[in-house]
Amino acid sequence: MQTLTVNLAERSYPIYIGSGLLSDRQRLLHHIVGKQVMIVSDEKVAPLYLQPLVEHLKDYQVDTIVLPDGEATKTIATWEKILTALFEHKHHRTTTLIALGGGVVGDITGFAAACYQRGVAFIQLPTSLLAQVDAAVGGKTAVNHPLGKNMIGAFYQPRCVLIDTNTLNTLPDRELSAGLAEVIKAALIRDHDFFTWLENHISDLLSRKPQALLTAIYTACHIKVTIVAADEHEHGQRVLLNLGHTFGHAIESCLGFGHWLHGEAVAVGLVLAAKLSVKQGLLDKEVTSRLVNLLTAANLPITLPTGLTCHELMAAMTMDKKVQDGQLRLVLLNGISQAIVTKDVTKDAIMAVLQESGAAA
Amino acid sequence: MQTLTVNLAERSYPIYIGSGLLSDRQRLLHHIVGKQVMIVSDEKVAPLYLQPLVEHLKDYQVDTIVLPDGEATKTIATWEKILTALFEHKHHRTTTLIALGGGVVGDITGFAAACYQRGVAFIQLPTSLLAQVDAAVGGKTAVNHPLGKNMIGAFYQPRCVLIDTNTLNTLPDRELSAGLAEVIKAALIRDHDFFTWLENHISDLLSRKPQALLTAIYTACHIKVTIVAADEHEHGQRVLLNLGHTFGHAIESCLGFGHWLHGEAVAVGLVLAAKLSVKQGLLDKEVTSRLVNLLTAANLPITLPTGLTCHELMAAMTMDKKVQDGQLRLVLLNGISQAIVTKDVTKDAIMAVLQESGAAA
Repeated sequence: MQTLTVNLAERSYPIYIGSGLLSDRQRLLHHIVGKQVMIVSDEKVAPLYLQPLVEHLKDYQVDTIVLPDGEATKTIATWEKILTALFEHKHHRTTTLIALGGGVVGDITGFAAACYQRGVAFIQLPTSLLAQVDAAVGGKTAVNHPLGKNMIGAFYQPRCVLIDTNTLNTLPDRELSAGLAEVIKAALIRDHDFFTWLENHISDLLSRKPQALLTAIYTACHIKVTIVAADEHEHGQRVLLNLGHTFGHAIESCLGFGHWLHGEAVAVGLVLAAKLSVKQGLLDKEVTSRLVNLLTAANLPITLPTGLTCHELMAAMTMDKKVQDGQLRLVLLNGISQAIVTKDVTKDAIMAVLQESGAAA
Repeated sequence: MQTLTVNLAERSYPIYIGSGLLSDRQRLLHHIVGKQVMIVSDEKVAPLYLQPLVEHLKDYQVDTIVLPDGEATKTIATWEKILTALFEHKHHRTTTLIALGGGVVGDITGFAAACYQRGVAFIQLPTSLLAQVDAAVGGKTAVNHPLGKNMIGAFYQPRCVLIDTNTLNTLPDRELSAGLAEVIKAALIRDHDFFTWLENHISDLLSRKPQALLTAIYTACHIKVTIVAADEHEHGQRVLLNLGHTFGHAIESCLGFGHWLHGEAVAVGLVLAAKLSVKQGLLDKEVTSRLVNLLTAANLPITLPTGLTCHELMAAMTMDKKVQDGQLRLVLLNGISQAIVTKDVTKDAIMAVLQESGAAA
């Protein structure tokens, strides 16, 4: 088992990474506050892992909610359903919420924990690679609004994150690949050696070799944790973690949530960010080729889905959270491990890259 | 003008108290972030103060929402309406929300600001006495849930609070009295001299003598600010500010929101807390008489509304945010200015006090 600490003064918390951690009852109990627990999961994950967890907690009042699977469930209405269940089962401010599932479950459970009685304890038990390396780490919680992804939420840190790498054995291939998009993103932002390591170990990761997965998860979490500890509320460098996400969110928003996985949209977003970086004279063209090769090896898409137009993608991008006073800020690359944020990109340059990558005029 | 500072490290902010502050354009502009503003008000306050405010902001993108008046509007649905308006008018993370109105407008606007894009700037312009001395100060934001008042929300601090005491000239008498309930509460918790001052100046306050109002608002805010700075998230002494509120919220919840004003329910809650304190051997009976006399002089109720039963009130009280692991915690009085929090009260003692004060068996 490996342990990382997210250093945020009195809100610091540990991330445990290892195989079989869901069976480590004492570790879990150590982080539960009070005598009441509400476990939120989804209909794919619950049949696999919910029952043993409930048995660990037989000395507590345990209530459970099983949500439909997928991004479409991450709404205000579902969030309100969790809150209502907490009221109906008379949970007090000393309750603990547990998110057992992927990024959707973690984001919505965290936002419910942030708001119930103005904030109760919560614990992340991420079961997808994407949640383990990204969504469950760093305290971003949210639901989607029909007009934008992750646009309603809070910065709210969990009491701990328990990453049981064994859960990846039951993860569908497509979701494993989607998680790798965020791993590749982390390497691009901050760690050239890790990028090279990923190029050399992508087949080990796809065949779920435990040691390779542990290394990838630990390293990606370490990169994210370092950035989050320096800038919890995204006033500065945390924005770098959004590499590929302005494009990615626009793709998800235009396609309608649920068609592509978040990681798939991010993969294409990374390619677009790299191509735009080349066009801006920041990045060597060879990096784009290496990135495209790595994403392709990871079974991820590298061009836009068919049927989207440049104009609708641009419109979605201008509602991005990184827009400041009407000016779009983009995360681009000066090189592998050298992400930067810039406002210095013309609309024409973005449109050109969108068109090259498959968007209709 | 008087100024208080809420000391919360990098989230510290000023509270300005004085007559005519709504006309002080420069002071307002100084605290606005970015170039976009969304003003939230209600249909009683907007006709009086919205237009001049919009004119101050002619160099900004200004959008406005006017909500129905009253506690019944403080719902998740209204909160979502504010968020949707922000999206529709393309407000970015650099926008500033302004709450122009009483406690309802302040609470719901603050909670929208806390959640929009995970947090944007907001400014409180409280126009009711209750909001000026209590709701707008200290960063508690919330909406109501059908199963409990203020049960969904966030601790989220404004950039500043601008209290224009002139707005009290247009406040209905009943609301002025309701605000005085929170002023009296503040004195009971922390300041014996202020309680005596209130006994001597209650008629000056009811006749809206400016100097008396300024003293009352400043002193009540000062008491609250001192407590909030020491315990922002209510892990300790901040719970004392809930004196009378466990009873008060139960009254509001059982009556249905909107029948009694919050301050009216708190007035009765203060009497019940005092009577229970006497019954527990903590408080001299004479204090209850002084309190009842002061509340009566302020035109506030001192007994429960008819038609409520002890059992429904008890049931509502057990959903209070101060319940810890199933045990009700109550704020009681050891004396004027000596509020304490205790779990050491039997259900029978509470039931007896409820019955004495007008609840059906």
